[in-house]
Amino acid sequence: MRAEVNVLPEVLVTGFDTVDVRFPTSLALDGSDAMNQAPDYSAAYLVLRTSAPELEGHGFCFTIGRGTEICVEAIRALAPMVVGEKAEDLFADMGGLWRRLVGDSQLRWLGPEKGVMHMATAAVVNAVWDLYAKARRKPLWKLLVELTPEEIVALVDFRYLTDALTPEQALALLREREAGRAEREARLAAGGYPAYDTSPGWLGYDDDKLRRRCREAVDAGFTHVKVKVGGSLEDDRRRLRIARDVLGPDRGLMLDANQVWSVPEAIAWMAELAPFEPWWIEEPTSPDDVLGHAAIARSVAPVRVVTGEHAQNRIIFKQLLQAGAVAACQVDACRLAGVNEVIAVLLLAAQFGVPVCPHAGGVGLCELVVHLSAFDYIAVSGSLDERMIEYVDHLHEHFTEPVRVVGGRYLLPRSPGYAAMTPRALADHRFPDGPVWSSG
Amino acid sequence: MRAEVNVLPEVLVTGFDTVDVRFPTSLALDGSDAMNQAPDYSAAYLVLRTSAPELEGHGFCFTIGRGTEICVEAIRALAPMVVGEKAEDLFADMGGLWRRLVGDSQLRWLGPEKGVMHMATAAVVNAVWDLYAKARRKPLWKLLVELTPEEIVALVDFRYLTDALTPEQALALLREREAGRAEREARLAAGGYPAYDTSPGWLGYDDDKLRRRCREAVDAGFTHVKVKVGGSLEDDRRRLRIARDVLGPDRGLMLDANQVWSVPEAIAWMAELAPFEPWWIEEPTSPDDVLGHAAIARSVAPVRVVTGEHAQNRIIFKQLLQAGAVAACQVDACRLAGVNEVIAVLLLAAQFGVPVCPHAGGVGLCELVVHLSAFDYIAVSGSLDERMIEYVDHLHEHFTEPVRVVGGRYLLPRSPGYAAMTPRALADHRFPDGPVWSSG
Repeated sequence: MRAEVNVLPEVLVTGFDTVDVRFPTSLALDGSDAMNQAPDYSAAYLVLRTSAPELEGHGFCFTIGRGTEICVEAIRALAPMVVGEKAEDLFADMGGLWRRLVGDSQLRWLGPEKGVMHMATAAVVNAVWDLYAKARRKPLWKLLVELTPEEIVALVDFRYLTDALTPEQALALLREREAGRAEREARLAAGGYPAYDTSPGWLGYDDDKLRRRCREAVDAGFTHVKVKVGGSLEDDRRRLRIARDVLGPDRGLMLDANQVWSVPEAIAWMAELAPFEPWWIEEPTSPDDVLGHAAIARSVAPVRVVTGEHAQNRIIFKQLLQAGAVAACQVDACRLAGVNEVIAVLLLAAQFGVPVCPHAGGVGLCELVVHLSAFDYIAVSGSLDERMIEYVDHLHEHFTEPVRVVGGRYLLPRSPGYAAMTPRALADHRFPDGPVWSSG
Repeated sequence: MRAEVNVLPEVLVTGFDTVDVRFPTSLALDGSDAMNQAPDYSAAYLVLRTSAPELEGHGFCFTIGRGTEICVEAIRALAPMVVGEKAEDLFADMGGLWRRLVGDSQLRWLGPEKGVMHMATAAVVNAVWDLYAKARRKPLWKLLVELTPEEIVALVDFRYLTDALTPEQALALLREREAGRAEREARLAAGGYPAYDTSPGWLGYDDDKLRRRCREAVDAGFTHVKVKVGGSLEDDRRRLRIARDVLGPDRGLMLDANQVWSVPEAIAWMAELAPFEPWWIEEPTSPDDVLGHAAIARSVAPVRVVTGEHAQNRIIFKQLLQAGAVAACQVDACRLAGVNEVIAVLLLAAQFGVPVCPHAGGVGLCELVVHLSAFDYIAVSGSLDERMIEYVDHLHEHFTEPVRVVGGRYLLPRSPGYAAMTPRALADHRFPDGPVWSSG
């Protein structure tokens, strides 16, 4: 059927290029928080070349400066696994491709399924998805929502998940949601997907900038704004007073501690911040600490506890859900190993009735996750209740299709593919020899 | 006091070299199991150079072939943090060094505290410990057991641990164990530390080799032997029948599934293997699955559940202990970020009354962990009950002081330092240009 549209039977993946691309964001303290004082938003970037003229697959993982070269090295170890393959063979078994990449018996030792190796896997997996969507001349979200429930289930590796979600349960869930797909797609096309704004509250911004940017967020139509906390309690109280003052009592004020606390500290600190009626506290402690998040969640209710931008894989999300530790899953599009594993978490979250509110910002994360949330709403969760995509207002100009956020809502992407930087952005910000870094 | 012995006030760390060193172990299927079909035991190796003649610090992380170059790249990103430092300044604050290495705000994004970055951190941390012990002309275990309880506590980063173990609790525990240190050291010096043998049971060995090697283990004095399982149930039954036949009813038969099962599979499979009365089942599922291990432990009791060779950091061990998920912690000397983090886990385990039975084998792991277990017994746990160090009988000849296992017990190391390969081993096995790889 649709598989016969734009099929490329003879196209091969012929090779790949990698780029270490870094943006000097630390100069303005954009992105500063209690753990990450001065990030240079960066990406370990992969371009898959094919035998078809101008058809390339782009993928990347997001990093914050030093160490991007390590992810590039990891991509170089993985990408040869798709070179020489027929593009259509890859597209026909994206689930099998994911398992091969994650399952290489020697590379697996370096994880398994976490950190540098998993982020590099994301770059490769997402580059193939980008290629697939471009070949079909569709934005990724559209390619995904046209898959059948059976095809979606086949994308997911259920190893380590079946105590929480079996393939049969996932299939039943997707079939149940099949009915309203067209209606929900039309609704998204008309109204967009809700966003919240993280731009106002970086820890390195002074009070005036915090106040001005909260005001701008309200004026732009955002109903929820996030502020970084965890540096000092006194500063937090002063900053939250400013933010709450601008937001008024009815807008949501999210807090983000970026992992700086131990469990008892998180509980004590949040007791002090409770009067500001936070919508959620994000990353109160180590992203590895499932039991710790569960303990914090019990103590700080009704404030929601959320985490996920550093949750390393679907197994951590499974446990966060099993333990009742989180009120939302903040999946990261390229810390999880690409589209396939994000879909695994979307299915788990739907099974537990918990919203997915993707981590975004950085460089390119907004461009990626809008596809994933659109798919989630249309095919998996079927709901927008308490669902929002993070939004940060920088570095979008470096993408071939920058996200469009209007009235506090993400509009659906229209260009074929997943997300790709412009050739100019890649050339200018190449580290250490691009003009941004080498000119004095 | 002792700090004035062999102090090197003017010595600087002047630079470093890295080596990608690989041993072609896959040729004989040594090390083969259900997950790792054909490993080439390898190491990303670091040599810290100093301004003192012939004084070097060696550290490495263990890998199994492909991807070793990624760990080397990660070591190169971290090692500059110790270059230019005075050696004595590093020795005087090993806890601070650990926190600086783990806490670099840009590199931390690539973990945090897990996988490639954490393994590379282990190489750097352990290289400084090797340097420290060589400077003091003592084997590492001896350097450690001469630290005061206060000095030991200062080595540990308690962030993320205080809900299970506070510095004060750790101090109390160490003080309580201070009394018997000399007696326990004398006992180890006389009788060694118990070992178990993993050499007989690799999945790639045929039945005759399994039987012969079990017999050799019994003859060598081992009381416990480990066999790999999880490939096929029929094979497992046949192989366990052989092993149990040779071991008799009273020796311990350990099983190791190397993570191949989901939780329900692990429970069902182990029900089938229960008649062989296993001592433990190791790595029944993903090392990230704390709740899964707890569920399996409840189902397979009285068979012990253990894991740890892939447990990424102290936060996972903390939860495994909190959840009652493991009967022993199988710390890995260079997947945890070196000596400091292993000590954190030794303290946690002692607090919960759970034995630490280190992962060993690979290349160099036996040489490393004998120091850690000696320290554990003398200063932390104070007990040998159900404590054993894994032993595998290959690649020891490549170390300056190969471990000595006699009558099924590890003897205490005598040479100054931690563990280091010979210059010959490094030169011959350098990948891809050493003679072992480039000739022929």
